[in-house]
Amino acid sequence: MFEHTARVEMAHTDAAGVVFFARYFDLLHRAYEDLMRQLGFPLEDLLARGGQALPVIHASADYRLPLFYGECYRVEIRVLKVGRRHFELGHRLLKEHDSLCCEATTAHTLVQLEQKKAIPLPDALRSALLALE
Amino acid sequence: MFEHTARVEMAHTDAAGVVFFARYFDLLHRAYEDLMRQLGFPLEDLLARGGQALPVIHASADYRLPLFYGECYRVEIRVLKVGRRHFELGHRLLKEHDSLCCEATTAHTLVQLEQKKAIPLPDALRSALLALE
Amino acid sequence: MFEHTARVEMAHTDAAGVVFFARYFDLLHRAYEDLMRQLGFPLEDLLARGGQALPVIHASADYRLPLFYGECYRVEIRVLKVGRRHFELGHRLLKEHDSLCCEATTAHTLVQLEQKKAIPLPDALRSALLALE
Amino acid sequence: MFEHTARVEMAHTDAAGVVFFARYFDLLHRAYEDLMRQLGFPLEDLLARGGQALPVIHASADYRLPLFYGECYRVEIRVLKVGRRHFELGHRLLKEHDSLCCEATTAHTLVQLEQKKAIPLPDALRSALLALE
Repeated sequence: MFEHTARVEMAHTDAAGVVFFARYFDLLHRAYEDLMRQLGFPLEDLLARGGQALPVIHASADYRLPLFYGECYRVEIRVLKVGRRHFELGHRLLKEHDSLCCEATTAHTLVQLEQKKAIPLPDALRSALLALE
Repeated sequence: MFEHTARVEMAHTDAAGVVFFARYFDLLHRAYEDLMRQLGFPLEDLLARGGQALPVIHASADYRLPLFYGECYRVEIRVLKVGRRHFELGHRLLKEHDSLCCEATTAHTLVQLEQKKAIPLPDALRSALLALE
Repeated sequence: MFEHTARVEMAHTDAAGVVFFARYFDLLHRAYEDLMRQLGFPLEDLLARGGQALPVIHASADYRLPLFYGECYRVEIRVLKVGRRHFELGHRLLKEHDSLCCEATTAHTLVQLEQKKAIPLPDALRSALLALE
Repeated sequence: MFEHTARVEMAHTDAAGVVFFARYFDLLHRAYEDLMRQLGFPLEDLLARGGQALPVIHASADYRLPLFYGECYRVEIRVLKVGRRHFELGHRLLKEHDSLCCEATTAHTLVQLEQKKAIPLPDALRSALLALE
């Protein structure tokens, strides 16, 4: 399991006084970006090399409790599945007292941009993800 | 079915050159806000009255095709389910030539804020949603 | 003068119940993107051609009145200055009863990306901007 | 001088491959929120108490160098001016090798919400700001 902690910023909230539902995916993606760096596969390198991308092909979230401005939260990421060309991650966002605010799943596929087709994940990435499973 | 058309703005895109996956939910919510106005249940009134909220309790999306800066798109919203205390909407975001970029589902519950509990949807809203089903 | 009208979305607001100060620049840029399309110089073409960019090199805003969720607003853009390599725009964002919410200025420079240097604006763009002055 | 360090997230970038000009204000506000916590005047307390707000009434930025996805940056905040009812902050955002990406100024006023008028800053806040000057 990978953990990432941060704090809710004003920019994440909306006029209902809570984190806007779409912004949770920003918070989870920030944690995921850290995970990829830790796994030795930083997205900035993928972007700089060009030619390939690792788009999110599925995202879903269930919202359990509201998250307010200034609250500290923790994101836990678990590896749910590692396929040849894609992988799935499970995310839990918790605040104080381990209160669960949001559970989410994302799926990611490696794509060769010119031919617009999914390609096998590098072995090193597969291994790093499997080690976390 | 409800339809909403708009164009991708620079603020929706990311360094991968496409609409950021989380931003699709912003685009879909903009369409949903228009829908609620058309149904006679504008969210600004709910917000102004206070005491109640209509949070998104579930959101999921499958991403089929990338959406680029400046492209025009159309959001179609269908009513999937109308319960006593919540409803579900199905969203399709299509671009030129009716190419499907994203399919999504959202679920919404009416909440009494002080008691933090779900309450029945107003009959007028239920009827308006059912008429669209 | 160029005009653009739109409505405040939930995604633009923050927990203080108003449009977040940084989000005004998103609203103004949306209007500016429409202006550039009308002038025959759509930013999507610039992006697609590659090699050049038109970054914002200065932005400033004075906030006069809060803007609330669901309010309709109008952005007025005036051309303040057209130089050889850059131009300046003046923006006013007004809501109902012509109430001024925000006055802003932005400056934009055309850049040759490989050599990282400012280059002359195309004559057609200069003329189109000057015609609007 | 107050310092805050962070890293550029995918959500901050746009299709031009750099941090979107408006998003710099999000990055600077995040640093400012940390500053206010350090000064003993967290914005979440102001929000929770209700009745008052501390809106940004002016914001301006000059953009010097592009900031790319994944880059680490440092925000330096200096107190430029402390008035009876408002204060001004100077922000510098620097990346690796102390390269200056953005210089900005923001002005903030304390407002009594019901009467919609500026009110004197608490002495404790004035002192804390002056100590940083």
